[in-house]
This record gives sequence, C-alpha cells and structure tokens, in this order.
Amino acid sequence: MSLDLPELLLLGPGPSPTSPAVRSAQALPLVGHLDPTMLELLDRVQERLRPLFGVDHRLTLPLAGTGSAGMEAMVSNLIEAGDRVVVGVHGVFGQRFAESARRAGADVATVEAEFGTPLDPDAMARTIAAGPTRTVVVVHAETSTGVLTDLAPIAAAARAAGAMFVVDCVTSLGGLELDLQTLGVDAAFSGTQKCLSCPPGLAPVTFSEAAIERAAARRQPAPFYFDLGLLTGYFGSERAYHYTAPVSMIYALAAALEEVHAEGLAARAERHRDVAAALRAGLGPLGLEPLVPVEHATPMLTAIRYPDGVDDRAFRSHLRMVHGIEVGGGLGPLAGRVFRVGLMGHGARRENVLTALAAFGDALQTAGMRPDIGGALAAARQEFT
Amino acid sequence: MSLDLPELLLLGPGPSPTSPAVRSAQALPLVGHLDPTMLELLDRVQERLRPLFGVDHRLTLPLAGTGSAGMEAMVSNLIEAGDRVVVGVHGVFGQRFAESARRAGADVATVEAEFGTPLDPDAMARTIAAGPTRTVVVVHAETSTGVLTDLAPIAAAARAAGAMFVVDCVTSLGGLELDLQTLGVDAAFSGTQKCLSCPPGLAPVTFSEAAIERAAARRQPAPFYFDLGLLTGYFGSERAYHYTAPVSMIYALAAALEEVHAEGLAARAERHRDVAAALRAGLGPLGLEPLVPVEHATPMLTAIRYPDGVDDRAFRSHLRMVHGIEVGGGLGPLAGRVFRVGLMGHGARRENVLTALAAFGDALQTAGMRPDIGGALAAARQEFT
Repeated sequence: MSLDLPELLLLGPGPSPTSPAVRSAQALPLVGHLDPTMLELLDRVQERLRPLFGVDHRLTLPLAGTGSAGMEAMVSNLIEAGDRVVVGVHGVFGQRFAESARRAGADVATVEAEFGTPLDPDAMARTIAAGPTRTVVVVHAETSTGVLTDLAPIAAAARAAGAMFVVDCVTSLGGLELDLQTLGVDAAFSGTQKCLSCPPGLAPVTFSEAAIERAAARRQPAPFYFDLGLLTGYFGSERAYHYTAPVSMIYALAAALEEVHAEGLAARAERHRDVAAALRAGLGPLGLEPLVPVEHATPMLTAIRYPDGVDDRAFRSHLRMVHGIEVGGGLGPLAGRVFRVGLMGHGARRENVLTALAAFGDALQTAGMRPDIGGALAAARQEFT
Repeated sequence: MSLDLPELLLLGPGPSPTSPAVRSAQALPLVGHLDPTMLELLDRVQERLRPLFGVDHRLTLPLAGTGSAGMEAMVSNLIEAGDRVVVGVHGVFGQRFAESARRAGADVATVEAEFGTPLDPDAMARTIAAGPTRTVVVVHAETSTGVLTDLAPIAAAARAAGAMFVVDCVTSLGGLELDLQTLGVDAAFSGTQKCLSCPPGLAPVTFSEAAIERAAARRQPAPFYFDLGLLTGYFGSERAYHYTAPVSMIYALAAALEEVHAEGLAARAERHRDVAAALRAGLGPLGLEPLVPVEHATPMLTAIRYPDGVDDRAFRSHLRMVHGIEVGGGLGPLAGRVFRVGLMGHGARRENVLTALAAFGDALQTAGMRPDIGGALAAARQEFT
C-alpha cells in the first residue's frame, strides 16, 4: 500500500496543517510508555498545557483519543443518570454534548439559539436557575458555525446555582488566550488538530479539584477507559499503568506545544485575529459575507455564506481538485448554505489568506459569479499593514 | 522542549519497535479526515485488517484510542446491565475486562486460573453452561503472563449456550494466524503497538453481523464515542462525520499493514515462533526458566522467572541504562517475580534475541550469578540453523 497522498493546504475546520517540527517529532523511534524519558516528557506536556487552558489544575493531560474522547471523559466522570444538565446548543457540537449526556441518562435541558447566532446569556441564566442544575455545558468556539461564546455571564450563572461548569474548548485552545480557572470553569476538553496544529488523536482535558472530587464520589463507576482515578494513577506521581499512552502522538504534541510556547500565547492569539480580519476584509470584494458578525465570531474559524447560485459541492470540489485546498462544508441546518474556513495554528498565516481568497474568487468565477479578486487581495493586504 | 530521546531496543510487552517505513509514514503532511484520499486509505486499512483477524466482517476498523479503547468498545456495545458475562481470568487483562464489564453493570462470573497457567476449558464450559450466559470473554495472548488460550473449546461452549464470544487479541494480532470467523468469535479487539509494530494509539476491532445486531438492539444507548452505529456511519459507505479520525496514526497503520501483507501472515507467524524458540533455548545456559511451558506459551511474549537473589528493579535498570534495552516487569502477583520479553513485529528478529540474551547474561553477572553467556548464544543460534 503506497501512501501516495496529495499535498493539500488544510484550511478547513481541522485537521490544520502540521509544522515540519511536529511531523519530524512523530517520526522519532519510540520509547516505552513507562520509560523515565517518556514520563518526563508527559510532565512537560502537562506543564505546557496548563497555561493554554489558563489553569493550574494538576489533572491537565492529553487523553488517548480524539476531541470527542475528551467530551466523553467529561460525560463519563462528571455526569450521572438523573442529573439535570443545562447545555447551550447553537451548533452541532452543543447538540453532540447534549446527546452524549442524554445517553448517560442525564435530564438535559437545552438552551437553543439559531446556528450562527450566540447563546443568549439571560436565557442560559434562567434555565440554569429553573432547576436543581448540577452541570452547565457550553461550546466555547462552535466549530460548526464560528460563533464564540462569552463564558463570563454563563460562569456566573452556573456559580450562582452551585452547578459545575464544563466547556468545550476544542477549537479555541491555543488560538486565543483562555483564563478558565479565574472564570470558574471546572472542567474543559479540547483536541490537538485545531489551533495546536498537532495531528488528531489526542484530547487535552483539564479537571479542577472540585471536578476530581465529584468524579470520585460517583454512584456508578465511570467506564474504565475514561476513569479519572485510573488516569490520575498514570499521569500523577504514582505512574501506574492504565493504558499504553500513544507515544508518537505525545511526541507530536510536545513539539507542537514547544512551538506555542516559543511564540507566546498573546502573540499567537494576535496572529489568529490578524489573519481572520484579513480574511473578512477580502470577502466583500468577492461578493461573499461571513455568517457571524465580527463581534460574535471566532478568530480561528469563519463560516461564509454562499451567494445564491453557487453550489456547495462544486465550489469545494473546485478548491480541492484545482487549488489543492481543503475547506469545510456546512453542518446540520447550514449544510449547503455555508463553507467553513479554518485559519488555525500553523495554518493561520498571511500567505494562506491570500491564497485562499484568490482560490475562492476563482471558484466563484467558475460558478458564473463576478468576484473582484484583485480588490479582495488588496483589502486583505491592507489589514496587514 | 527538545525531544532529546534515547534510542532504545524495545523488547518489552509493547510498544514494539517501529520500522523506518512506519515512522516515515507518520511524518507525512496531513490530509483531511473526510478527504477522498483518506477515505480510500481507510478502506484499504480495513481490507488489510480483515485477514489478520481471519474475518470478512464489514465492521473491521481501527478505533481512535489505545487497545483498552477496543476493550471499552466491546463493553459499550455488547454488554448491558444485568447480562451474565463469563470472563476467563488468568492474567491482568482478563481481570481488566471483568472489571470493565462490572462497571457496565454486568453480572460477571469469572473462571480463574493461576497467573502463568492456561484456563481450564472444562471449567469454562461448566460456568458458561451454569447460567443464561449472554457473553463469553477470553484473552487470547495474555500479555501479563505469556499464556496462549486455546479458543476452540471455549468457542464451542459459548455456541452451545447461545452466548456471544468476545476475544482480546491485543497481543496476538499480526503475530500468529487468527481464524476468528471460522471459530465463531463474534467480536474481537486489538492494539497496534504489539505485533503490528505501529505506534500505540489505535485499536483494531471487528464485529460480526450478530454483534452489530445486538448493539443495535440495546436497551440503553452506548456512549457516543464508541457507538457502533455512529462508527458504521463513518467507516461504512455513508462516510458521515463521527469524529476526526487520527490521520497520521492511520498513515502509520497503513504502512505497518503493508509490511505485514508483503511478508505474508504465515511467514510472519513462523518468524515469531522461530525467535521465541531461540530465546527459550538460550535461557537454560543463563540459569533462567520461562514461566509458561512451551505448549501453552505465546510466541510473541515470554515471561521469565527471576532466579533467587536477582532483584527485578536492579535487573531491568541494568538492561535499560547499560544496554539500552526495555523489557517489562511482572504485573499483579507476578510483580518482582518475572520479567517479560516481547519479540513482536519489527522487533521479532534473530539479532535481537542474541542481543537480549547477552544483555540478560550481563545483568545476571552484575547480580552475582554465573550465567553461561557463550552457551546461551550458541544454543539460540542452533535454533536458527
């Protein structure tokens, strides 16, 4: 089986492009998962993850699994049958958490907002206050829409109700500055394939002491794979065998975190904002408009409405086959109506914005539109000065 | 964070050493997890996995997670609260499955055998027949002891009772020929870091149509992450998004499976048997003896008893620090009493047997023993002629 794979520019909702250093790290020969050098590397990975989440929780670690495994770890450890769980749903990943909590037998109350609009914090607060709410869940950066959630008012409502606050940071971690501990977030999860620009396959998670206590006090045990007690055994000082950690993925994450650290979180966040602003500036001349107004938009992922007459499949196929660019399609009610552009991690670069805008223009031309490609590039470049 | 890692010879219970081709595959730039080239690659990975398990089940795929995630997928989909589940326990991995099934609320009946001895098939048959048994579980190659289970009589007992038969193939897959479908095994799971010599982080699993039907008929839904219906959506013809597949790990697995296919399963199994025989031949002159008699032993993993007066930690530390060799310690009741030598996949090579025997001899010398190192090497070489 030859791995005859195309070289693509990954500007979709993830995976984002990996840097040469991250790819090289993955190719290193393995050490054992209990080798002292591996345990030391894990310690350093944990140390590097904490400031990204903005926490000093000892239980901050990369789970073996994709971002969804991080979600499952939240459900498995913090939610029990009968719990009232309030989930903000304004995109596919809110729906997904709500479904996972229902599967665990939770009494789920959703607060819904149209896909592409933010959650109403007052509606969240009312629903949280309406019952003996045990857990509140929101998605920070909704990957399906590109809406960024203001965590502070929801955190306050959760705190007022004595509920635990759990946040999906899959797309935000490493692309903007998080301050979860100060906000009072009790647990959060992410993936490595977004703004960390590490391949998919690990789920960074963090749990506060209160979350650890809740997990320890469960009436029903968590599934073995996600059990916090067992994970603590391996990632804590005991170093007991729980499962064989994915050694080469940990190498990749270590290299990716080193790049984040070398750049600095503030500079990295600014870079993500800059390229997002340039992308937005270029849309108008192409005859495109973003789904989400800038004040509610994530910097790392921008959903863009199709003009009437442009077919989703043909547009994305043109980008993929002619330009070698991957962007994402719409999900749920937005399928066919938007495409999603990720400028994340190693992909959040000025040249990628220009390449993308020119390619979007070319795909629109192909669809019979009249985009001003030169104008789009000039408008984007303007943002960089 | 520099990845200043030692070069070690991995002769423990896993991970096994990866080949240069597998490491290079991991370092390739990513494509998207829904890109046509990725989906084609997944198809080929699934095609290559089926003959390794000895099945033609459509639902044969690599889960995102370690081998334990494969176990969890079995429990999540096939076991429900109240089910009577008979688990053969003669090592740590049987204990682990029993515990996971209990966490899911199953009524678990264990059939125990001393660590290092095989399960008694008559005892298994009696316990299976003693109740309305819904599922029977055994570990094929017990990684904690090196005992190989004879699956045929247990399969017959499960069939007679109308129970589903689930097998842990973590350490056997790719190191010996499996014929699970003919035997009547309904579902099995494995890991990539043993005889496939791919890094840890994926769990190959296979489910028969009967297993798929049972999963679909569950009273309680499976956890989202492991839900067979959702997994089928991505790995089947529908290609619906379930989670972001670990792209670079799939590359590594594809390359590893290509190596397995190029060598041929029969030749690969023979290679594993050959090196195991050579290792055993060399133990006597060193004053060592294997835990498990050859008729019940796995070829890929050999547990070796320590002579009186040899300290486990000092012995393994000598191998690691002086010789750069990783072997495993004993688990459970065997902790401190045995060390475990894996000659798996890319590591199952003649030169590694000789290197290992010489190093064991040196470590024994250091502990004040009088091993005949020359005799050990000659005895091992004899097996290769």
